[in-house]
Amino acid sequence: MKLLIVGGVAGGASAAARARRLSEDAEIILFERGPEVSFANCGLPYYIGGEITKRDKLLVTTPELLRARFNLDVRTRSLVEAIDRQAKRVRVRDLATDRVYEESYDKLILAPGAAPLRPPIAGLDLPGIYTLRNLQDVDRIKQRVDQGVRQAVVVGAGFIGLELVENLVKRNVATTVVELQNQVLPPLDQEMTTPLVETLVAHGVEVLLGDSAEAFEAAADGLSVRLKSGRQLPAQLVILGVGVRPENQLAVDAGLEVGPRGGIRVNEHLQTSDADIYAVGDAIEVQDFVLGGATQVPLAGPANRQGRIAADNVFGRAATYRGTQGTAIVGVFDRTAAMTGASEKVLQRNQRPYRKIYVHPGHHAGYYPGAESMTIKLLFDPDSGRILGAQAVGGAGVDKRIDVLAMAIQAGLTVFDLEEAELAYAPQYGSAKDPVNMAGFVAAGMLRGEHPQIDVGTLLALPGDEQPLLLDVRTPQEFAAGAIPGSINISVDDLRARWGELPSNRKIAAYCQVGQRGYVATRMLQQLGLSVQNVSGGYKAYLLYQGAQR
Amino acid sequence: MKLLIVGGVAGGASAAARARRLSEDAEIILFERGPEVSFANCGLPYYIGGEITKRDKLLVTTPELLRARFNLDVRTRSLVEAIDRQAKRVRVRDLATDRVYEESYDKLILAPGAAPLRPPIAGLDLPGIYTLRNLQDVDRIKQRVDQGVRQAVVVGAGFIGLELVENLVKRNVATTVVELQNQVLPPLDQEMTTPLVETLVAHGVEVLLGDSAEAFEAAADGLSVRLKSGRQLPAQLVILGVGVRPENQLAVDAGLEVGPRGGIRVNEHLQTSDADIYAVGDAIEVQDFVLGGATQVPLAGPANRQGRIAADNVFGRAATYRGTQGTAIVGVFDRTAAMTGASEKVLQRNQRPYRKIYVHPGHHAGYYPGAESMTIKLLFDPDSGRILGAQAVGGAGVDKRIDVLAMAIQAGLTVFDLEEAELAYAPQYGSAKDPVNMAGFVAAGMLRGEHPQIDVGTLLALPGDEQPLLLDVRTPQEFAAGAIPGSINISVDDLRARWGELPSNRKIAAYCQVGQRGYVATRMLQQLGLSVQNVSGGYKAYLLYQGAQR
Repeated sequence: MKLLIVGGVAGGASAAARARRLSEDAEIILFERGPEVSFANCGLPYYIGGEITKRDKLLVTTPELLRARFNLDVRTRSLVEAIDRQAKRVRVRDLATDRVYEESYDKLILAPGAAPLRPPIAGLDLPGIYTLRNLQDVDRIKQRVDQGVRQAVVVGAGFIGLELVENLVKRNVATTVVELQNQVLPPLDQEMTTPLVETLVAHGVEVLLGDSAEAFEAAADGLSVRLKSGRQLPAQLVILGVGVRPENQLAVDAGLEVGPRGGIRVNEHLQTSDADIYAVGDAIEVQDFVLGGATQVPLAGPANRQGRIAADNVFGRAATYRGTQGTAIVGVFDRTAAMTGASEKVLQRNQRPYRKIYVHPGHHAGYYPGAESMTIKLLFDPDSGRILGAQAVGGAGVDKRIDVLAMAIQAGLTVFDLEEAELAYAPQYGSAKDPVNMAGFVAAGMLRGEHPQIDVGTLLALPGDEQPLLLDVRTPQEFAAGAIPGSINISVDDLRARWGELPSNRKIAAYCQVGQRGYVATRMLQQLGLSVQNVSGGYKAYLLYQGAQR
Repeated sequence: MKLLIVGGVAGGASAAARARRLSEDAEIILFERGPEVSFANCGLPYYIGGEITKRDKLLVTTPELLRARFNLDVRTRSLVEAIDRQAKRVRVRDLATDRVYEESYDKLILAPGAAPLRPPIAGLDLPGIYTLRNLQDVDRIKQRVDQGVRQAVVVGAGFIGLELVENLVKRNVATTVVELQNQVLPPLDQEMTTPLVETLVAHGVEVLLGDSAEAFEAAADGLSVRLKSGRQLPAQLVILGVGVRPENQLAVDAGLEVGPRGGIRVNEHLQTSDADIYAVGDAIEVQDFVLGGATQVPLAGPANRQGRIAADNVFGRAATYRGTQGTAIVGVFDRTAAMTGASEKVLQRNQRPYRKIYVHPGHHAGYYPGAESMTIKLLFDPDSGRILGAQAVGGAGVDKRIDVLAMAIQAGLTVFDLEEAELAYAPQYGSAKDPVNMAGFVAAGMLRGEHPQIDVGTLLALPGDEQPLLLDVRTPQEFAAGAIPGSINISVDDLRARWGELPSNRKIAAYCQVGQRGYVATRMLQQLGLSVQNVSGGYKAYLLYQGAQR
């Protein structure tokens, strides 16, 4: 067996190591265009910010180690330029010497990754404008920051964009982030990103949403970024983080099938339209685990697993890739935001029926000091209750709950299963009713019909004549400190005495701070014969929606 | 509907609140023997230690709030002394006035909890000797510590015992913990507790295993604790944490069925042998979720859920309790230990076939500063790969992985599913190959036969003539710093050149530090025709076993 692997970072390096573990006598050649293999892409922003101080920490492995430990023929600075599928040969350019040569293969694994998008903006090639993909990029950006940058503009507020913003601020760079969408972190639903904008602003970041860079111009002091809105932003550093596109040229030239968005098409064995060629990582189309159908999800975890699976198949083990859930996480200053499965907007775009709820539990028992609040949004099937997606934003413990929910989605569990989840509880770690249980209780109560709910988005979109009576069941003190406009206030603890004040011929939307007292009030009024719904997630959810509308 | 509930802490208070949400017009009376309802049992040690500073933080709710919000008839200091099942009445003693009266019921929920065991030790009633169950206990203990205690003895090194030890040390009390078993935290397997003993010792705690208190004697300076080993421990404070027994007297007197260990028998609807009487919480027998059969697991999370479920059934909703996995966690100084599902010793006791592996991953990406190492032990079915149990010990991130694995056990997932788990990765939170994936890879590799492994326990127990050649594949520097006695050393990176030095007619056990290089070496030697196994968890697992043998 002679196996060639194109690309030596996450998917390619995983495939190569796995291949050697499966076959001691295979000939395995790993081609990597850059000078390094298997570097830590996800750590690059933190090297700029100084959290990671040593550059060689970013090298997950080295060509030398791969040679010694796995007997791999590692060829860095080697560009695979063409595939002759008929002859089963590739043409390789040694970028150090410009020598071009051919190499035959029995099987070929493509792991070329994805390249940062460079939108056609005037002045894109001016000095001081960067994208971030590899160590060479990070060296250039870090050098520039080290030399002194007062103002930076990050174009794109996705995962990497926000990590860059945080790390530039940590280097005392006044940073503006510009995002075409009307929210940061576009994979999440808009209202869930409100706390991220708040923390960005609190840390001095200017957040410009629904705007975009139209031109970059040289200025006395570096650059000027002209926005569509007309604003001009002075900057000595611009980083573009507006997304990536699959590096598919080699595959396209070879006549391999690609999808509409450019991802290399593969079957469940990660085999391309040529049975001897596999493809893995950011360059491929994957199955959407929740919704089915093809999608592109550039993530390190899936790339690593795909590398293993492709190697398994090369050596005759019929391993299958199950699809990608899109589990992702980002830290932005003191906040963490994470998601798994489908977002509400993706469900809407797919016309997939769903229900949703919000809860705002503490990350551990409230009686133990230091509990941090989080918001969890849960999306689920209206009939079966199967979990379709989850998002969480908050501080500590967000990562845990998203991982638990990711496992639940993988297992096809329902909100009824979340009610029964038996998670670890001691006061420093969780609660007797864990946030995951709480989400399950609220969602299952909705589906069982015992907990009628309305979400803030739906509530606010109702025409005036369909607006329910807004009943704030918090204390008068809480009510006075801020409430949904038009609300009346009867504390839940007074409601049994005062419910006669409520109209029996009008729908009521009850709410409290997070949804729990609202639930108690809803159950009470429902049994008293009134038409009532609880506002899911309460006033806190209202504030998330309001923040998102800014 | 007239519902009486006996016991107002976790299960009872949950049942009462749920009952009111289900029925606005039911008459609901909650009897609690003590002066408080629904206090935070799990927080008690941290109030002694001063982490929780305000006593009223320990009151999760109050009788006043339950009355106002849920219209519950809450009767504290009210002891239910007898049940007349024929007449469907209970006899109640008001402990404040000593008045005795009767109350009728349609349905009755028993949530009496469990009482600390008080073993028959001479001198047990001397002043300064306590058990810890409720706020009155904690008041007494805290008062004594506040008055000044130099030396304390904690008898029993279970979850609460270890929490007490930590909190006494935080109060500058020289503390000795005495445990009858030859390990701390008896629900875990012995080798997994080594890091806990290490941290206890590092914090100045004297840990006496395989010993027990035989007598308490008054001494000039307080107390003297005489141990079975003959040692005498001076102390001004002794706390017994040797387990709990179900508070079943009321049930037994009423002729309700109880199990051999005293737990009140219930069916899946939490109904006792009397169809009108339900029972929940620490007083009942539950189904063992993993192994089936009845067991007793006093945990707050299950008690809360059982309260909900019993109330559902009272009001005609056929909710079922699925059984208890035994998910539990404890913080001991800088260490966290947690488990879910069956332990190895329980599997052995049940003669249930299993396989096990150990991994020692970092809690997040190694290239990002602050990664803390953990050990995960995974127990799984030899045929299907279904996960039977998991234990983890380490620092940060242990709680997350146990919760993910708890969800996986609940869903009936296998080690092959863990390989494919798509968990959240950014460098502060995890790794592209999460610890859960790593455990899956190693376990699945074992079951597929591609990764033959031997565990340290089995290895060390082999008779001399069956001992394999111990091959340390770490670097010479690592080898020199400490290795399994009798090992030879060939670094994995030299093994292709030097494998001819190995005997072809003798079994080989390869090992490295954590198991990863040992795996690479095992694959290599296996393919070269040698008979080889990887020592699961490597030298670190060896150290765990050695520590446990001290």
